[in-house]
Amino acid sequence: MGNYKVTTGLSNKHLHLSAEHIEALFGAGHKLTPTKDLRQPGQFACEEKVDVEGPKGVLKGLRVLGPARPETQIELAMTDARVLGFKPPVRESGKLAGSPGCKLTGPAGSVEIDHGVIVARRHVHLSPSEALAAGVKDKDVIRVRMGGERAIVFEEVLVRAGETHLSEFHIDTDEGNAAGADSGQEAELLP
Amino acid sequence: MGNYKVTTGLSNKHLHLSAEHIEALFGAGHKLTPTKDLRQPGQFACEEKVDVEGPKGVLKGLRVLGPARPETQIELAMTDARVLGFKPPVRESGKLAGSPGCKLTGPAGSVEIDHGVIVARRHVHLSPSEALAAGVKDKDVIRVRMGGERAIVFEEVLVRAGETHLSEFHIDTDEGNAAGADSGQEAELLP
Repeated sequence: MGNYKVTTGLSNKHLHLSAEHIEALFGAGHKLTPTKDLRQPGQFACEEKVDVEGPKGVLKGLRVLGPARPETQIELAMTDARVLGFKPPVRESGKLAGSPGCKLTGPAGSVEIDHGVIVARRHVHLSPSEALAAGVKDKDVIRVRMGGERAIVFEEVLVRAGETHLSEFHIDTDEGNAAGADSGQEAELLP
Repeated sequence: MGNYKVTTGLSNKHLHLSAEHIEALFGAGHKLTPTKDLRQPGQFACEEKVDVEGPKGVLKGLRVLGPARPETQIELAMTDARVLGFKPPVRESGKLAGSPGCKLTGPAGSVEIDHGVIVARRHVHLSPSEALAAGVKDKDVIRVRMGGERAIVFEEVLVRAGETHLSEFHIDTDEGNAAGADSGQEAELLP
């Protein structure tokens, strides 16, 4: 029956904001404006955009993803980070200690944060039943293969399985380009 | 004794020029000015830089690599190509038919070319004795693994073996970022 397959979701550079920073950047009492539901349950893209500034440059108009998070987190590909002038660590979402900070600017103001910029560790989301079918469990580290003229096997892929997850292989734009892949392309979980 | 290992060379965006285009961009009778020998015998980086323009944008100051080639060839990562506004094919060096063109501008003039922009197909250079030791031959397609926190196996790696080659695994900046790799990192040829 072959290996378990999921679709690929390519993450462009984006950020998640704390409730406090939403108000600082967009005004007191501001609520995020959802424009599109993402595949992961409860997650959505927003109308709001933010400029991100580092020691060497600025990335304009990064998309905000909702809902609000306990801590503000900026997710860049390494190519993007080079524009800002630093090399962020490769991290699982939410593991922000020791990562570089930056300046964020929205229509209502700016904030300086002293940590929060990461390159996302590649990961595969699975619901509990999907994880069971795939024979993996939350926090496993597995290999995932993508085919094509730039066929590639990604090692060190973190499994994130649970009720708030749905099958999707998340990689960033550098990884997608290295694989010659588009969003929606099939990826195969290797045993 | 394990698998055969080579060092990785990360290719930043660059271009090779025909003799005719060297004169068109830098002036009649101009000769390229070498600044650094590359690992591949006879190849060198030059002082000369060229602006490359596509339908949607410009990449300024791309490094020229010498010596002159029969045909002008621009090698970009997909991330770079997006800035110009097209998606070049993934090609072996010199296989330029059907690739997009662009406008090139140097200090002495501009030229429009109707093909020549590619994303380089990843490849490994080997001298004849290195190829023998590695158990591969010219034009083989193999897998190459890089370790680390973004460990990866690149499939579809072309072997380029011969007298004018010396062991080096060539990938572009997208591929290097996807592997979390720097130039000089060890790569392993898989059987």
